[in-house]
Amino acid sequence: MTATAATTAAATPATPATLAGRTPADARARYRAGLAVPSSGEAPGFTQANLVVVPQDWAFDMLLFGQRNPQPVPMLDVTDPGSFRTVLAPDADLRSDLPRYRVWRDGELTDEPTDVTDLWSDDLVAFLIGCSFSFETALLDAGVPVRNIEQGRNVSMYRTNRACRPAGRLSGPLVVSMRPVPGEHVVTAVQVTGRMPQVHGAPVHVGAPSSLGIADLGQPDFGDPVDFADGDVPVFWACGVTPQAALMASRPPFAITHAPGHMFVTDVPDAAYRQ
Amino acid sequence: MTATAATTAAATPATPATLAGRTPADARARYRAGLAVPSSGEAPGFTQANLVVVPQDWAFDMLLFGQRNPQPVPMLDVTDPGSFRTVLAPDADLRSDLPRYRVWRDGELTDEPTDVTDLWSDDLVAFLIGCSFSFETALLDAGVPVRNIEQGRNVSMYRTNRACRPAGRLSGPLVVSMRPVPGEHVVTAVQVTGRMPQVHGAPVHVGAPSSLGIADLGQPDFGDPVDFADGDVPVFWACGVTPQAALMASRPPFAITHAPGHMFVTDVPDAAYRQ
Repeated sequence: MTATAATTAAATPATPATLAGRTPADARARYRAGLAVPSSGEAPGFTQANLVVVPQDWAFDMLLFGQRNPQPVPMLDVTDPGSFRTVLAPDADLRSDLPRYRVWRDGELTDEPTDVTDLWSDDLVAFLIGCSFSFETALLDAGVPVRNIEQGRNVSMYRTNRACRPAGRLSGPLVVSMRPVPGEHVVTAVQVTGRMPQVHGAPVHVGAPSSLGIADLGQPDFGDPVDFADGDVPVFWACGVTPQAALMASRPPFAITHAPGHMFVTDVPDAAYRQ
Repeated sequence: MTATAATTAAATPATPATLAGRTPADARARYRAGLAVPSSGEAPGFTQANLVVVPQDWAFDMLLFGQRNPQPVPMLDVTDPGSFRTVLAPDADLRSDLPRYRVWRDGELTDEPTDVTDLWSDDLVAFLIGCSFSFETALLDAGVPVRNIEQGRNVSMYRTNRACRPAGRLSGPLVVSMRPVPGEHVVTAVQVTGRMPQVHGAPVHVGAPSSLGIADLGQPDFGDPVDFADGDVPVFWACGVTPQAALMASRPPFAITHAPGHMFVTDVPDAAYRQ
């Protein structure tokens, strides 16, 4: 459930029923073969992750940015320099197994390939970061409606007036995702997501967008506007766009990320991240 | 509640009643003035932390070791290179405010000063790591007896047959602390500490030391033997000695740690780490 600072992600369709039962390995094989579609709804029940890849010179700053800002940047795994393997899916190849990538040079988006094997080098370190797809499943399981899924749209995301704690060359605002939650379900939404700190955890704010510096919920900075039903309250969670926005603003010479909505599908059940 | 790979820590006395009510700033001022006593029982209700300081060249490996082994190495804060300030106690000076330090050169213990200001340099990065003192308070609050405190001894610690996940040049076994827990309190002990993942969290094992490769509970690798009462069961938690043992085994050219039991007293209430 991510976008980048440069682009508003296209609307993501709700889970097609035909995907039910596909395994993470099946999904990754299809992406490896060239399928370039958003991963929403793939391998239901398995965790999907944000990908950020930077040169080794930037790796300490990135890891420290996560340590200091665990709600927006929950680090699920960090690779050894040069490695394209992760414990989250031992058979996967991080260079080819995502549906689509983005390539950044000096902070500018330069390409959106479906494979980055040719760009990989021994100098690169990959960060896999928790994603709110996991807690959306948990919300649905708990009977909390998720309006962006109902409406077939990407979630709404906003820059806030809260600064992340800087780490070396990396700094930037907290970016949040917002979901309209029926008032009677707000407590359940807090409790369910609070038990999943590795996929952003409990909300950072409930109900008053202006106190986060958000003037108009209808004009998100990333993603799509999402309609409110009568009695819905805006609930805000820390968002995985935060590290990408900080990274791009600091203009490293080279970086690779996933393309918005085109996540890494892991072998880890969502339930592994429920406390 | 730590020792180092090189030394068995001396027994630590139980909390003296006279310390009740002392603030973290009071405690640090006494240490800064030269008092060199174990910090057990100081500033009750406030979090104490393990300290590890390494050159910048080793900082990524140390931070990654924590990311990959969060139970034994829960990172509470990491300083900017050269800084001796931490958000855990903004007025504290990490070079002088611990009761006693250890200085390591090429993996060998070379000194145990009460101040390391003269040894500090712009190249050093400090790691503050969660400590089981915090959950011992929570256990007592929940009515679970803590035998090592009752007996005025340091907790028993053991090397296990479980390897930590390596990170760069750092590798080593999981070290655990063991507390005898009355059988009827084991569930409470699991639940209470499970709510405190930043201070080692839930136990890693209950009841069968041989499956961890521990032959004789009466002969701990670090700390003191602790007596069992009738009906007590051995309960094992990941231990903050783990990163020190790995660091010393890998022999960095220079490192500073706290001396066993002589922790950093923070301004953060223990309750801040209870979920």
